[in-house]
Amino acid sequence: MPFRDECGVFGIYAPTSSEKISQLIYYGLFALQHRGQESAGIATTNGEAITHHKGMGLVSEVFNKENLAKLEGKIGIGHVRYSTTGKSHLMNAQPLVVQHRKSGLALAHNGNLVNTEELRSMLEEEGVVFQTDVDTEVIVNLLARYSKAGLDKALVKCLEIMRGAFSLVIMAEDKLIGVKDLHGFRPLCIGKTGDTWVLASETCALDIVGAEFVREVEPGEIVIIDDKGLTSIKNRNKSIKKAACIFELIYFARPDSVLDGINANSYRFKTGKILAQESMVEADRIIAVPDSGVPAAIGFSVQSGIPYGIGLVRNRYIGRTFIQPTQELREMAVRIKLNVLKKNVQGKRVVMVDDSIVRGTTIRQIIDMLRKAGAKEVHVRISSPPILNPCYFGIDTPSRDQLVSANYTIEEIRDMIHADSLAFLSIEGVQKATKHTGGYCRACFDGKYPMEVPDNMKALDFK
Amino acid sequence: MPFRDECGVFGIYAPTSSEKISQLIYYGLFALQHRGQESAGIATTNGEAITHHKGMGLVSEVFNKENLAKLEGKIGIGHVRYSTTGKSHLMNAQPLVVQHRKSGLALAHNGNLVNTEELRSMLEEEGVVFQTDVDTEVIVNLLARYSKAGLDKALVKCLEIMRGAFSLVIMAEDKLIGVKDLHGFRPLCIGKTGDTWVLASETCALDIVGAEFVREVEPGEIVIIDDKGLTSIKNRNKSIKKAACIFELIYFARPDSVLDGINANSYRFKTGKILAQESMVEADRIIAVPDSGVPAAIGFSVQSGIPYGIGLVRNRYIGRTFIQPTQELREMAVRIKLNVLKKNVQGKRVVMVDDSIVRGTTIRQIIDMLRKAGAKEVHVRISSPPILNPCYFGIDTPSRDQLVSANYTIEEIRDMIHADSLAFLSIEGVQKATKHTGGYCRACFDGKYPMEVPDNMKALDFK
Amino acid sequence: MPFRDECGVFGIYAPTSSEKISQLIYYGLFALQHRGQESAGIATTNGEAITHHKGMGLVSEVFNKENLAKLEGKIGIGHVRYSTTGKSHLMNAQPLVVQHRKSGLALAHNGNLVNTEELRSMLEEEGVVFQTDVDTEVIVNLLARYSKAGLDKALVKCLEIMRGAFSLVIMAEDKLIGVKDLHGFRPLCIGKTGDTWVLASETCALDIVGAEFVREVEPGEIVIIDDKGLTSIKNRNKSIKKAACIFELIYFARPDSVLDGINANSYRFKTGKILAQESMVEADRIIAVPDSGVPAAIGFSVQSGIPYGIGLVRNRYIGRTFIQPTQELREMAVRIKLNVLKKNVQGKRVVMVDDSIVRGTTIRQIIDMLRKAGAKEVHVRISSPPILNPCYFGIDTPSRDQLVSANYTIEEIRDMIHADSLAFLSIEGVQKATKHTGGYCRACFDGKYPMEVPDNMKALDFK
Amino acid sequence: MPFRDECGVFGIYAPTSSEKISQLIYYGLFALQHRGQESAGIATTNGEAITHHKGMGLVSEVFNKENLAKLEGKIGIGHVRYSTTGKSHLMNAQPLVVQHRKSGLALAHNGNLVNTEELRSMLEEEGVVFQTDVDTEVIVNLLARYSKAGLDKALVKCLEIMRGAFSLVIMAEDKLIGVKDLHGFRPLCIGKTGDTWVLASETCALDIVGAEFVREVEPGEIVIIDDKGLTSIKNRNKSIKKAACIFELIYFARPDSVLDGINANSYRFKTGKILAQESMVEADRIIAVPDSGVPAAIGFSVQSGIPYGIGLVRNRYIGRTFIQPTQELREMAVRIKLNVLKKNVQGKRVVMVDDSIVRGTTIRQIIDMLRKAGAKEVHVRISSPPILNPCYFGIDTPSRDQLVSANYTIEEIRDMIHADSLAFLSIEGVQKATKHTGGYCRACFDGKYPMEVPDNMKALDFK
Repeated sequence: MPFRDECGVFGIYAPTSSEKISQLIYYGLFALQHRGQESAGIATTNGEAITHHKGMGLVSEVFNKENLAKLEGKIGIGHVRYSTTGKSHLMNAQPLVVQHRKSGLALAHNGNLVNTEELRSMLEEEGVVFQTDVDTEVIVNLLARYSKAGLDKALVKCLEIMRGAFSLVIMAEDKLIGVKDLHGFRPLCIGKTGDTWVLASETCALDIVGAEFVREVEPGEIVIIDDKGLTSIKNRNKSIKKAACIFELIYFARPDSVLDGINANSYRFKTGKILAQESMVEADRIIAVPDSGVPAAIGFSVQSGIPYGIGLVRNRYIGRTFIQPTQELREMAVRIKLNVLKKNVQGKRVVMVDDSIVRGTTIRQIIDMLRKAGAKEVHVRISSPPILNPCYFGIDTPSRDQLVSANYTIEEIRDMIHADSLAFLSIEGVQKATKHTGGYCRACFDGKYPMEVPDNMKALDFK
Repeated sequence: MPFRDECGVFGIYAPTSSEKISQLIYYGLFALQHRGQESAGIATTNGEAITHHKGMGLVSEVFNKENLAKLEGKIGIGHVRYSTTGKSHLMNAQPLVVQHRKSGLALAHNGNLVNTEELRSMLEEEGVVFQTDVDTEVIVNLLARYSKAGLDKALVKCLEIMRGAFSLVIMAEDKLIGVKDLHGFRPLCIGKTGDTWVLASETCALDIVGAEFVREVEPGEIVIIDDKGLTSIKNRNKSIKKAACIFELIYFARPDSVLDGINANSYRFKTGKILAQESMVEADRIIAVPDSGVPAAIGFSVQSGIPYGIGLVRNRYIGRTFIQPTQELREMAVRIKLNVLKKNVQGKRVVMVDDSIVRGTTIRQIIDMLRKAGAKEVHVRISSPPILNPCYFGIDTPSRDQLVSANYTIEEIRDMIHADSLAFLSIEGVQKATKHTGGYCRACFDGKYPMEVPDNMKALDFK
Repeated sequence: MPFRDECGVFGIYAPTSSEKISQLIYYGLFALQHRGQESAGIATTNGEAITHHKGMGLVSEVFNKENLAKLEGKIGIGHVRYSTTGKSHLMNAQPLVVQHRKSGLALAHNGNLVNTEELRSMLEEEGVVFQTDVDTEVIVNLLARYSKAGLDKALVKCLEIMRGAFSLVIMAEDKLIGVKDLHGFRPLCIGKTGDTWVLASETCALDIVGAEFVREVEPGEIVIIDDKGLTSIKNRNKSIKKAACIFELIYFARPDSVLDGINANSYRFKTGKILAQESMVEADRIIAVPDSGVPAAIGFSVQSGIPYGIGLVRNRYIGRTFIQPTQELREMAVRIKLNVLKKNVQGKRVVMVDDSIVRGTTIRQIIDMLRKAGAKEVHVRISSPPILNPCYFGIDTPSRDQLVSANYTIEEIRDMIHADSLAFLSIEGVQKATKHTGGYCRACFDGKYPMEVPDNMKALDFK
Repeated sequence: MPFRDECGVFGIYAPTSSEKISQLIYYGLFALQHRGQESAGIATTNGEAITHHKGMGLVSEVFNKENLAKLEGKIGIGHVRYSTTGKSHLMNAQPLVVQHRKSGLALAHNGNLVNTEELRSMLEEEGVVFQTDVDTEVIVNLLARYSKAGLDKALVKCLEIMRGAFSLVIMAEDKLIGVKDLHGFRPLCIGKTGDTWVLASETCALDIVGAEFVREVEPGEIVIIDDKGLTSIKNRNKSIKKAACIFELIYFARPDSVLDGINANSYRFKTGKILAQESMVEADRIIAVPDSGVPAAIGFSVQSGIPYGIGLVRNRYIGRTFIQPTQELREMAVRIKLNVLKKNVQGKRVVMVDDSIVRGTTIRQIIDMLRKAGAKEVHVRISSPPILNPCYFGIDTPSRDQLVSANYTIEEIRDMIHADSLAFLSIEGVQKATKHTGGYCRACFDGKYPMEVPDNMKALDFK
């Protein structure tokens, strides 16, 4: 079964840094923590050997002064991982560190291959054994296989045969490498401060270590950073079109990050404005489902002139060990995480803005809470189009039969969630918000997958 | 040395509940987690013996299904604690559970006595030994001392001799008791659902367990909840005026809580509006220091017509074990927690709203970050008056020489924090926002302490 | 219910030591670990304040370099505890550290009072509250109550009113105190090296810190060690006879410890010899139930001329978290801890020596194992007399109805445990092995309790 | 660098067992715990997939009811590991579980290959990557490489090319396999109970699960246990002679284990007798260095007629987290683990028996302790010959320059360790004790390595 996750990667090449690079990677991963809270890992090299430390949990839980101090050297990479399947062993944590032809290699990966099965079978046929469930181990074995003529040649070969979404940071004992798949599904950017180079999933991780944004890694590009500076191997096949994941802008990226020239918060604010233009409604108050709905709600408010207010308060202290309510207290489930701020809701016609609807179960409970708190009307506005199709490129969407929009009309959904009205952003609205630049994968909305998806993967959607 | 902390208390009397009350207390404390993250504890009674569990850390870290399951019975109390001193042992965690005259007693306390030293000396003189550093142990010994004639008589006596701030929940084997000091410094409210009674520091903890707000416990009141329902012993001495802590509205309380009829979020929004009336400035964008400055910033925006936007993004993954930057990376300290959302700041005249200034060090670093990100002007607006005096009633303020407003003029502070302009809310503004109802302790602003403070406590302010 | 446990105590007064005394106490407790594995604690004082650390588990689990480093000063005490009841909270761990009349007091206790209930009621009547279940808290409250005229006077008073077994080490901010009850049930000895004084339950703890044995603390004696050296307050009432617990020699003490001039191993070896004289039997091999039966088995072998061999091998890796066999694997229970060394048993007539029989269940399983391994005959020899009566002085014996010897004849027991013959050491044999010195409590064998036992305690024996 | 360790392996095939096999493996590993305390692991299969759990620490620390419950199926293997190098990561814990050609494989290994480097280079050359430092990963890759024609064929091939010591238990989804290298260095035996087959490093692990000993796995043999019962593939090349490690009898094996027909305790007892014949001395008392010297000391006593007594008491509570004495307390190092039982030593001429001398540092400190306790003479008798050569076959001996016997004469050593006399068992004595059966590797004594050792390994002996 292909393994799907959303992750964050970080790499640094700091030949003259007086600072401990393991600590810089620590802060870099901390800035990317929203991309994965399940495991974290750092690998560094002093030019001779690779040292690494990985663990389950948040960056601040996995690392302490002692284990950071042992991670020495001038080059390093890190990874945060979010796994939505049960296979959340330490074994699957990254970076994956291996020995190969007398030298070490570490690799951290964000994305999802669609031909893992095929590549894995090919490798197993040749006698390769696998110790983990993650794509990353397939990638590292492919690299090893083709690396006789050098790591760069091996990467070019890998770009040819690996199909799917992958943004990689790779560390050999003397260099740092960044790679993006041919479509550029997952973000990866380059930063610099002095002679220190940084690679990161998002610009917010450049900011935290004080690096200036240089540029994005391009789709199909391999950037090699070593003592000769940055060298780039670009994909010459221009027939493949860029297809950056639109959900990074909608939901994943931190609001302060900039992706392909678009700030995530601004995108969300703008979709809120467009949504107000497209689906205006008479109301007394705009509220958001926190935190993801807030920027669009403010945009909706600005455009509509209806005042924005905090309607729902989120409890931020839910940790990994929080005890969910038992069956008898099931109705509490949403109430525990969110509480209505009555003052802004009672006796009011409310517009509630959220970024997306997947299964539609939580939103119904929220709307019931709002009504119980005295809301006169509840109008739901969603700042992205209906999700009709599963993702095969690194986002863990449920199977098709659980995607509410794939199975019901908007009117049916409105009824199911107990809303007075319901509207989604149009695809046209998405295009407007991305300035009609193109270059996005919006297959979850329009079904136009940038590449053919193997049947065995599709099968998973109808379980 | 008197011990100062801000805490949250919760109590429940659920004679016919089919639900596990330890789990209800768990959720109640979870809703009060913002009042204390250092330790948590729950004590319950089945009518014969008291069982309890306490530990260091968040509610979700201290409790698990196993230890919650052992906490049986129909009456229970809980406590979350934040300690700002080094004395953060488990020994000091609450509720304090004792055996006395063949029966058990558990007590949880929010506040700070000002005559602890005196009471403790008196008790020690009579042969009492103390095992902890907390006021709570003094209170429980006083109760025991005067309890021959009954717990209620003992409480009346305690209200006479204990001076300072205290909101208590107390559990005997057959009753739940709530007590507020004569001035009512710290909040404590009563809720009800069916025949279940709830006492809690804030209304948000009533909401989470599905209880309806009944009323506040009054200053100097003792409420006793047992199989005869709720009985109240009220203070007949009307010469003492109510003095609820204004900082609960400004900062401590959760935005969805309602204190003495005023919703915390609305208070903050309103102070933002008044601040805009009092200290308008030409600007392009209103931003907030998250999270505490957000409602006032929105209020300022609504009043001024200047658009509100997210200017700073807070990283929410800082846990207790987060590694702070070393000396060399000191300048990163603020950057790690907050990042500028450039798009909303670059090239703009910015008004930044926060709830208060204590030492003035962090705000300077934030302003420097904004300028580095391209802000043309930074105008600071504070939604409370300058803090000129220390608190002796349960808030851990630094000593007077570290309160920047007690030592510098507003113009000097503006210069120190690198702002283009700086304004505070006026005391008049506070009165407006509290609807001129009176009944607040604003000693930190105006020095009018509701009671005389012993010299040995005052001495601490000039260390 | 009175609380019964067997514990170890240690105290040190080291005015000029260049070594960290917390580390010396650590090693002292480590040498006493066999006396209690449930919790461990250390308290030290620098002359001004008392610092302490306590935890559940072995000494090596509770302490680490960090927490030992924080325990500073020149005086300190420590405690290891074994609790046989369910009340094994951290709350009950010792030393108990309290504040009293502006100064600190720490107390560690080995033994069991028989009038706890009465003393506790008296104190509660006067308004004292209790936070733990242990006798120690009663003692510390009595001390506080009578200490106006000084700690020494208070101790004299306590010796008068506290009835039962207690060996105490007490630490004030400028002195170390050792106390033994009037009968001297539990051991406590004095050691010295240079100007460092040591108090310890057993001499093996003097050895480990390099202190020379000075003498035992006498029954009813208070020794005070401070900057004037050692001062002794002795009990002048000579009517009370010494009654040291014989089971310290039989089982509790470490083999290398010397108690009242008798080495524990030698005592055990000698009882083995006497047992062979009293109850000889034709056999091929002497084996022991390890570890407690080994010295007596060797003594039996020397006296009888029958060769000793290892017949049972004990697995030493059973930790606190070991998973006991489930019901289906119940027959494995003994096999997991002990394995037969077939070679020494098969086809042989075996004499198996153990130190005592309490319930008689384990020994039957062992004998069955020996037979299954091919033993032709199994003769059981016990190096102490039958246990007919419960202990009220610090040993956790089961209630009378579970003591097999109190309920069955020797012949019946022999039959129950599947032995070919069974013999116990005679009381006369015990006297011989203790050189007829007298001064021992042997109430478990002969029912002659050194003091009257309250009826409420006796009641517990017939549950 | 080749990795050296001593480990324990266990395997079970229980097609109709009503018991949880993970629990049986737990007890099996618990019985083998003396062979490795650093990490433990279990893998089981339900015929479709392999589940495993590994961790650092003792068996009782790594496993709990929850993780054992998840290990389902009818076939399973387990491993305990002791690593003497710094590379004690979880990564290196066993069993190693891999996916290969659509099916799972788990492998646990005891021993040490001498041509690891060569095999690893060969595999790396073909594109294999390595994730751990252990031989086991090399073995599993070789197996995968040759397994196209079946696992049995692959194993035959592996036996040809893998040089060194290895006893393996291997689990595929439908079978359990045991393998011993051509010389049979490390023990591995077969047991049976009902239709359940067991493989284990030592017979004591058969006993604990109630299995009868069937036979040893022969050198060069592959035993395959599946639904057709046990099939054996034997090595037909009879030119290679058996070379079982003599140190298993001397030290490693548990006293109750039987290896190649010889009980470990009996061997040790017998060497003590032979030693007394070879190197008698006038003395008053025989004592042992516990625990390893005890059986030989008893043998020496029986032969010499000099009484045996406990001279040294070992503290058994040293756990993994025990704090070793600091530099200032260095002299305490031995005293902490061992204490002299003065009574058996003072004023006496003592013969102290131990199983071997490696560096000679500890024994000197022990002898100094004995003298300080009043021993008149200390005669040292060692129940094995001087260790003159390092081991390359699974025992972590220090490099040659640290082997005291390789660098000094017996008289020099006697002087260095402060003994009155010193004697070792003769090689002839070893032969007697093993009944002149031959078939042992005694290279550490006589330098006759059963196979050529690569120069790169030898180089390590002169670091």
